[in-house]
Amino acid sequence: MTDFNRHPSSYHHWQLQIDGDLAQLRMNVDPAHPYQPGYELKLNSYDLGVDMELADVVQRLRFEHPQVKALVVGSAQERAFCAGANIWMLAESTHPFKVNFCKYTNETRLSLEDLSRHSGVKTLCAVNAACAGGGYELALACDEIHLVDDNNSAVSLPEVPLLGVLPGTGGLTRMVDKRKVRRDRADVFCTMAEGMRGKKAVAWGIVDATWKKSQFAEKVMNRAKELAAKQPTKATKGITLAPIHAQRDGNKYTYTHVQVEVDPQARKAMLTVHGPKGAQPKDGAGYEAAGCSAWALQCWRELDDALLQLRFDHEEVGLIVLQTRGDRGALLQVEQDLFANRSHWLCNEILLQMARTLRRFDLMARSMYALVDGDSCCAGAFLELSLACDRVYALDDDKVQMAIGPLSNGTLPMSHGLSRLLNRFLATPAHGQQLATEMPTLTAGEIDEQGLCTYLLDPVDWADDVRVALEERVSLSPDALTGMEASLRFGGAENCDSKIFGRLSAWQNWIFTRPNATGDEGALTRYGAPESAKFDWRRT
Amino acid sequence: MTDFNRHPSSYHHWQLQIDGDLAQLRMNVDPAHPYQPGYELKLNSYDLGVDMELADVVQRLRFEHPQVKALVVGSAQERAFCAGANIWMLAESTHPFKVNFCKYTNETRLSLEDLSRHSGVKTLCAVNAACAGGGYELALACDEIHLVDDNNSAVSLPEVPLLGVLPGTGGLTRMVDKRKVRRDRADVFCTMAEGMRGKKAVAWGIVDATWKKSQFAEKVMNRAKELAAKQPTKATKGITLAPIHAQRDGNKYTYTHVQVEVDPQARKAMLTVHGPKGAQPKDGAGYEAAGCSAWALQCWRELDDALLQLRFDHEEVGLIVLQTRGDRGALLQVEQDLFANRSHWLCNEILLQMARTLRRFDLMARSMYALVDGDSCCAGAFLELSLACDRVYALDDDKVQMAIGPLSNGTLPMSHGLSRLLNRFLATPAHGQQLATEMPTLTAGEIDEQGLCTYLLDPVDWADDVRVALEERVSLSPDALTGMEASLRFGGAENCDSKIFGRLSAWQNWIFTRPNATGDEGALTRYGAPESAKFDWRRT
Repeated sequence: MTDFNRHPSSYHHWQLQIDGDLAQLRMNVDPAHPYQPGYELKLNSYDLGVDMELADVVQRLRFEHPQVKALVVGSAQERAFCAGANIWMLAESTHPFKVNFCKYTNETRLSLEDLSRHSGVKTLCAVNAACAGGGYELALACDEIHLVDDNNSAVSLPEVPLLGVLPGTGGLTRMVDKRKVRRDRADVFCTMAEGMRGKKAVAWGIVDATWKKSQFAEKVMNRAKELAAKQPTKATKGITLAPIHAQRDGNKYTYTHVQVEVDPQARKAMLTVHGPKGAQPKDGAGYEAAGCSAWALQCWRELDDALLQLRFDHEEVGLIVLQTRGDRGALLQVEQDLFANRSHWLCNEILLQMARTLRRFDLMARSMYALVDGDSCCAGAFLELSLACDRVYALDDDKVQMAIGPLSNGTLPMSHGLSRLLNRFLATPAHGQQLATEMPTLTAGEIDEQGLCTYLLDPVDWADDVRVALEERVSLSPDALTGMEASLRFGGAENCDSKIFGRLSAWQNWIFTRPNATGDEGALTRYGAPESAKFDWRRT
Repeated sequence: MTDFNRHPSSYHHWQLQIDGDLAQLRMNVDPAHPYQPGYELKLNSYDLGVDMELADVVQRLRFEHPQVKALVVGSAQERAFCAGANIWMLAESTHPFKVNFCKYTNETRLSLEDLSRHSGVKTLCAVNAACAGGGYELALACDEIHLVDDNNSAVSLPEVPLLGVLPGTGGLTRMVDKRKVRRDRADVFCTMAEGMRGKKAVAWGIVDATWKKSQFAEKVMNRAKELAAKQPTKATKGITLAPIHAQRDGNKYTYTHVQVEVDPQARKAMLTVHGPKGAQPKDGAGYEAAGCSAWALQCWRELDDALLQLRFDHEEVGLIVLQTRGDRGALLQVEQDLFANRSHWLCNEILLQMARTLRRFDLMARSMYALVDGDSCCAGAFLELSLACDRVYALDDDKVQMAIGPLSNGTLPMSHGLSRLLNRFLATPAHGQQLATEMPTLTAGEIDEQGLCTYLLDPVDWADDVRVALEERVSLSPDALTGMEASLRFGGAENCDSKIFGRLSAWQNWIFTRPNATGDEGALTRYGAPESAKFDWRRT
């Protein structure tokens, strides 16, 4: 069982130092602590374990250190800011692992951007030495990039010329869409193995500033202080995040509010989420007092962990079957209180956690079906989970209800910026908007009329129809389903975030399967070997 | 040498009948005339040859039959509207051919949509019998889909369940983005091998209307007449399109205004386009008199053909080097006259042809470099070609000039809707807009200052620098370059058209390379065989 929990006291790869409203994070990857044995993490190159710690850092800044207003991301090594994803790790990895690793690092970088956009922590990347590939992609995820001017240190995306793959962790998309680097300059930069230094990198928009080595630390710190000074104070004291652990019993994972039951033969997993029980905090102070054990935080952190377990430890599970359980009224009350107190830093962070977990759910490369029966708690953000599924099967029964809550009107956006209601009702946006503003509670018949379920099934047929539906789904080609779902789930708009997963990752996945990259004579396989790669030159 | 010319008098697969302002096109694929020997085109299934004729039909409607205001796309076969792309052809094809075939069919369908959007020809698909896969994708490219209600005929996208690949010719994207079918319903539809019939297909937005068999022909014709009646009259008489032929001498193709010289060893092609010579038409009447030999039409049709030759017959060419030749003033005069007369049907069609050819150029899966020297004619739409290239190398010389013309302000949009100037200057849209409205003529120094070249090279360095640049480019992984270029060329916006090429095609390309589709036990390979496919179930 993969353990995604990390703690600053036992980081192998990062140093986090907090001083008032400034946080300094220094990458210092321990070459001798790879996530899997078999390769060394030289020159601050990273693997999944390094990124798990980074994800932990961002989470702790959010919840444990709300006083922080600016974050400087740097390196504790003299010779390297970061050499990017470890190439030996990539070359040895299976295709599903590579894809999942890239998705996770992408989500971590998006969380860093979300920290700046929605949590008031401005981010500055202090590139003190060579910064290549995924290292520069990490820099791209920061608000500003400052590069040392020492006649040596360069930023680069050498994936295309050196490895025959893409800078696939958002690099290409962030260059032209986020930083709006001119496309021909981006083209030049992405084919220069040696990268770009100082003033030219500034002129081309590849970095924001460059400073002489002697001044670098001071200039960076001054700028970070400037950025921090412009941010409002959120809080002086945070809460403590406890680790998330499931009790694992064979193929069953039991968290406090989440359960996963994997059926390896049937290649499906039953995912059950439970609503709040007992008294819940009513406002920000209440949430501060409750800490991380409050349902609204604990449940969604558990769900996040469960999704990662499914991705990494159960690659063959093709279908996730979602069930919701609990008291609709209690769940909606929690959401109303959170929404009413969303200007409180902790309520805001809890809502952002829910939004990120929902987006991770949207991006599961698995089929997802929601079941809505008489015991379901299909309300609020649990209803959002159902809307994130590829299909919703509802039972035609008096006990069945769905209730739209206050968070469905834009608080929990999908990667491409739309709410799940507007994404569902692209043909009739007024209908989606009406549901979001009127927040009705719907009976089984109304669920069907209002378009919130795919099938409303008679109780007589329920068990058989659902069984057949699940069996049919897992019989289909997993690749075709992945491509189909990625295309159908995100209708209408696209933005930088969704282009990373849609356009860039899709191309990268293709390239990862091609002999030119991963074949015996491919560029990724042969990196560092005396023979250079051999290519099939046919263009497609 | 692939011959893309077709003529109605020798169509094997379509029947085109024009009656006043109504055109009826009936698919009637001759099973015994496949594009390549080795498979039969049963049940109106199609291959490249069938699509070449369809592309020809759309071109002739545009130029030869401007009186047509509505087009009915139907079938002359009782048992099949269209069974989609021929599966045996797909299973036998190489990966580069499959990808190029899909791109060409996509462009043909986009041209059909462009015919409705910009040429005033409304399109109605009359689905008189079974309509599967690419057949339904053709229907999706029409404005309206009418389905016969005979208790038997269904529309379907059976690629995922039957073949383990995607409906990749725009199908998935058009479902949710163009027709805005609810995503869960699209999910159901795309996994139903048997498809959907009559009233349910209407209720789900899969088709627009359904009619009893006895009424079908009449209802369709009435609706087509209604659609035609709403369209303004463009013209009563068209011009005649002569075939486009290059003289081929070894690796050299010579058209009237276009030359291509392929260097197979260096894996590059020199593409030279020549501006107008001699007197050119001044207005619509002049263009009608000149017919298809007018430079503005002939040159861009030749370029279109040249690009297709490169795609299909020179898969190993990795780099296209663009050179422009001719008189800038003469070229700009032609464009000014076309733009001033753009409300004339033929001037409009010529501009649309230029726009489509430029989009085909944008979508070449080859690196493209533009050279701008003292003999260049880098003006107007030839400047657009340069801006479509990945890089522009300009010579720092007094004779070098670039001139922006009247078509750069939105008349020739890229697939994602942006002009090439705005796509280039995403960071400074006001600058792009200023260039588009002021239409300056720029000296070498100004070209560089204004950001219209990637490199301005000293005459002393020119020959060597260019040679090295070309050599470096063709040494890189062709797959990585394809993915990189697809990501960097289209910044900012996305729309239905660009999502087809960006998101959907990228996934399809991935799936086409995966053993689950094209391996010995893959679903595409095993289609029709007694053994069913065997899948690697790992999801990614």
